[in-house]
Parts: sequence; C-alpha cells; structure tokens
Amino acid sequence: MNIFESVPNFSTSDENIIEILKGIITSGGGTFLDSTSDRDHNRSVITLIADNDRIVQILFDLAKSAKELIDMEKHRGLHPRIGALDVLPIVPMGNSTMNEAIEISNKLGYRIGSELGIPVYMYGESAKIPERRDISYIRNMHFQYEELKQHILEEKYKPDYGPAVLGSAGAMMVGARNFLIAYNVNINTDDVSKVNMIVKKIRSGKYFKGVKALAFPIKSKGYTQLSMNIYCYKCSPINNIYNFIDSEAKGMGFDIESSEIIGLLPADAVALSLGKFIKADISGKNILEYKILGSYGNR
Amino acid sequence: MNIFESVPNFSTSDENIIEILKGIITSGGGTFLDSTSDRDHNRSVITLIADNDRIVQILFDLAKSAKELIDMEKHRGLHPRIGALDVLPIVPMGNSTMNEAIEISNKLGYRIGSELGIPVYMYGESAKIPERRDISYIRNMHFQYEELKQHILEEKYKPDYGPAVLGSAGAMMVGARNFLIAYNVNINTDDVSKVNMIVKKIRSGKYFKGVKALAFPIKSKGYTQLSMNIYCYKCSPINNIYNFIDSEAKGMGFDIESSEIIGLLPADAVALSLGKFIKADISGKNILEYKILGSYGNR
Repeated sequence: MNIFESVPNFSTSDENIIEILKGIITSGGGTFLDSTSDRDHNRSVITLIADNDRIVQILFDLAKSAKELIDMEKHRGLHPRIGALDVLPIVPMGNSTMNEAIEISNKLGYRIGSELGIPVYMYGESAKIPERRDISYIRNMHFQYEELKQHILEEKYKPDYGPAVLGSAGAMMVGARNFLIAYNVNINTDDVSKVNMIVKKIRSGKYFKGVKALAFPIKSKGYTQLSMNIYCYKCSPINNIYNFIDSEAKGMGFDIESSEIIGLLPADAVALSLGKFIKADISGKNILEYKILGSYGNR
Repeated sequence: MNIFESVPNFSTSDENIIEILKGIITSGGGTFLDSTSDRDHNRSVITLIADNDRIVQILFDLAKSAKELIDMEKHRGLHPRIGALDVLPIVPMGNSTMNEAIEISNKLGYRIGSELGIPVYMYGESAKIPERRDISYIRNMHFQYEELKQHILEEKYKPDYGPAVLGSAGAMMVGARNFLIAYNVNINTDDVSKVNMIVKKIRSGKYFKGVKALAFPIKSKGYTQLSMNIYCYKCSPINNIYNFIDSEAKGMGFDIESSEIIGLLPADAVALSLGKFIKADISGKNILEYKILGSYGNR
C-alpha cells in the first residue's frame, strides 16, 4: 500500500469551511493530519495522507467543495492566489515514487479540468513546460486571480487541463513535488523594504540552496513576515536560516519576534536543526516516532 | 494491542554481542529500534518495542543471553553497574498503562530470579520499598558489582526476586517507568571537580526539575562528560539544560565540545526544544511522524 501526502492550500480562513473539508478527508478514508489557517493571508493549509486507492477521489472532492464554498470575487488576503483551492501538491511518502505522484496529479488535473470546469496549471515535477515547474511563473504577487481573468486567453496562460475560462473558483496549480517546509520568521518592524533586503539575499542563492522567500507586512500584529519555502532542509537547515535572518535583522537594529511552521515538519528536519544548536550529531534516526514508522516499512 | 518500550542497559560494548541480542528481539517478534554503545563506559543501551504478548519472553531471553555472554568479573567501565543486563526498564506506550508495565516487570523479575538465579531489585514504579524507587539507592558510583558481592547478605541488599547469591552475571534492576531522555554534555576540560560543581547545581533541584546528573572523566577523548537522565522533558527541556551548562562552563573558562543523546528522543521533546531556539511555538503536534502515529491510535 503506497501512501501519499497532500498539502492543499485553500483561499479561506473560515473555520466552518475547514471543518467541512476535514469531514471529506475522513469520510473518504484519508487521514487528516493538520490544518493551519491565517486571517491576514485569509488562507488555510491542510495536511493529509491517503493511499493510492483513495487519494485521487479525496482531493477531487476537496476541489469540488472548495469551488462550491469559496468565492474568489470576494476573497482578499496577503498571499498571492489564483483560486479557491489554490495549490494542490502531491508528495510521495515511504515506498511511493515520484512517478506515481506525477500520475496521480495528472489524473486529478484532468478530472478537475473536465468535470469541474476549472483551469488547471501543472507545476513542480508534473510541469508540462519547464517554466511552469515554478508556481511563480503563473502566480505571483503581481499576477493573481484578478490579473488571470484578463489574460487567460493569452498563450502563456493556456491551461494544461480544463477550459481557458475563469469562474468564481478561479484556477488551480496541481503538481507532484518532494516534501517542503513552509517557515515564517516575523521581524519587529513595519519597514517591509528593509526586510526585502534580507529576502533578496536569501533568494540570491548565495547563502542558501533551495529556499524561496517573500515579505508580507502583517499590520494586525505590527511586524513584517519573512515567509519561506524550504525545498531542501538538509542543504538549508532551519537553524542556519534562523541564525542568518537573526543576524541580518540585528544588523538593521531589528529583532526576530517569533517564527512559525506552516503544516508539518519531518522529524529528521527538526532533529538536524536542534542538533546544530546543541552541538549534537542527531537526525531522524534519533527520534522514537521516526524509528517506529521506519520499522513498519513506511519509509 | 498494547505496546511497551524497553531500554535494557548491558555491561558490554562488544558489537558481536549486540548483534546476537538484536537477533533475539527480532526473532521474538519485537521491533529493534536503536542501540548506542560506548567503549569508555563499556556499556550498550538498546531500545526496542513489543506488544504485551511478546515483551516478557523477549526481555527474559535477553537476560538469559546476557548472563551467558557477559562476565562481570572481567568487566571494566566508567558507568556504575551491578550486572550483565544491568538495568531493565519497561515503559508504557500509546494506550498501555503504567499498571500493565508494573505487572510485566514483576513477571520478569520473578522469572529472571527463579529461572536464571539472578538477584533482582525492583525499581521505579515497581519498587517494593520506597527507597528502591531510585536506582542509586542500590547501585551508585561507590557501590557496584564488586561491593554488592561483599554485602548482598545484608538486609539493605536483600533481592526482591531470586537468590541473595551473586554469580558472574551479577544482579539486575528491573522496573516500570515513564519515558526518560539520557543526555550527555561533553565539556573540554579534564578537571572533573569543576564539572562536579555544575553537577551539584543540577542535582540541587533549584534550576531543574527531574534531572539526575553525574560527571565522568573521558580520558580517551580528553573531556569531561556531564551525563544526565531527564525524567520530565516538559519541565526541563533540553535547550534549557544545554544553555545552563553552556553558561556555567563558560563562567569557568570552558566550552561545550559536543552533546549526545543516548537511545531515542520523543518527537515532542525535540520540537519543544528547537522551538525555544527559534522562538516558535511548536511541539510534537507539528511533527509529521508524531501525527501519523497519532492517527493510527498509537498515542
């Protein structure tokens, strides 16, 4: 039995909608693991696992409910987004392979496009065009749901599945990828331009490999959020990223107020980072739960 | 099915013996999770899990093999010890209860005493006398296998199970307990008396709850090892202990050279400690493997 993780990103922070989505996962035979909602981003990230017999139907049902429950015409939020179910990643776990995850993503893209009439862009390992591997080729801070409505007939935005027509559910990015860590560091300043100087250094690739970064002004909390996706936690461990931002922020006279993990962390990533702080040579192999799962062949 | 963890401590660092012990665990239907051996201590700690149908027989078989393979007359090592299989803890996991773990420990104590002729002292939650809850009431730096041979007929050392006769397999501490973390911090000095000043502060209970400490000179590596058992990682998180020792050591002009985890860490303990270093409010609930196991009802 091959297991896959999915981490769908929804353009809502409405608790009632999240409860409905949880119910769909559970009744479909999947396992709901976590949800993280943010009001400023007006966005929720759900983590679930399911086996290859169930994953397609569960994710299709989530896409269908998101279309019914979320109206992009009314959605406001800091994070860039093009659709109700905005990003749908499929991650191979344990003995599952990336090729299987790509196959699943294509089945989903096809059904979501044809049965729900939602334009689908395949990204990550499932990209049909090299440029589309990166989500930001289609969706970024300057090109979101509103812009896509005007430009969807252009060749650059031709969907991989579904019609080139944008309804109130918007469009969707679907793709297979490896595990990633979504990590935010909050800096006690409202000067986003200063934090953007740190963002540029991180994005330059000179200091870290496989880390994407954006800065958001979080006015409700009075700080600026440096939001990152870490694509390779072994090359770019959390402790290094934290220490780098801490030292850059202090150099500007700021401090890190807090940091946060969106979704779930692999035990291996936590152990490697803690190990660096306490000068201990530890990894997932030192973690009880990691070893227990390994013993059940789920790795 | 109720699962128990056991963390038997053997008075050997012989890899061939460890391989034999691993084989006993696996062929008995248990799951070998980890082993950590130390040449200076001449000691190995194995971590295994098994269900309540199998745990007693597996641990009895380990005790029997340790008796056959380890000769305490020839054993030398830094860590205090009274027997070949020196300490045999049983830890309830998931839905298992402490009462079940105590019952298992008594079945084992009885069989090891009567069938193998090894004197057994029940400790931890299984102690028959309050003083014996703490291992160090019987076994400590000043009272080990050699001393027990001379004093075993005294009332204080009367075994709970088995004869008051010490063979070359020595005696054994058997008991149910909660999860503990064995954590060593290595300080770059050969002045054990200075490190003992830190040990005293830790043992005083003024700074930490539920932490036991000892200092060992590790001549082969040129440092002093501050060796701890953390009985409550939530009251006394690893990061606090590390930072305390780091600041005490620096105050004496020393540095922490490295630290090490013996056996396995619960994901919750790792996440809590990493969270403190990166100002993030995280715990086991943010760890993928912890959530997956939780979803299978193993918590």
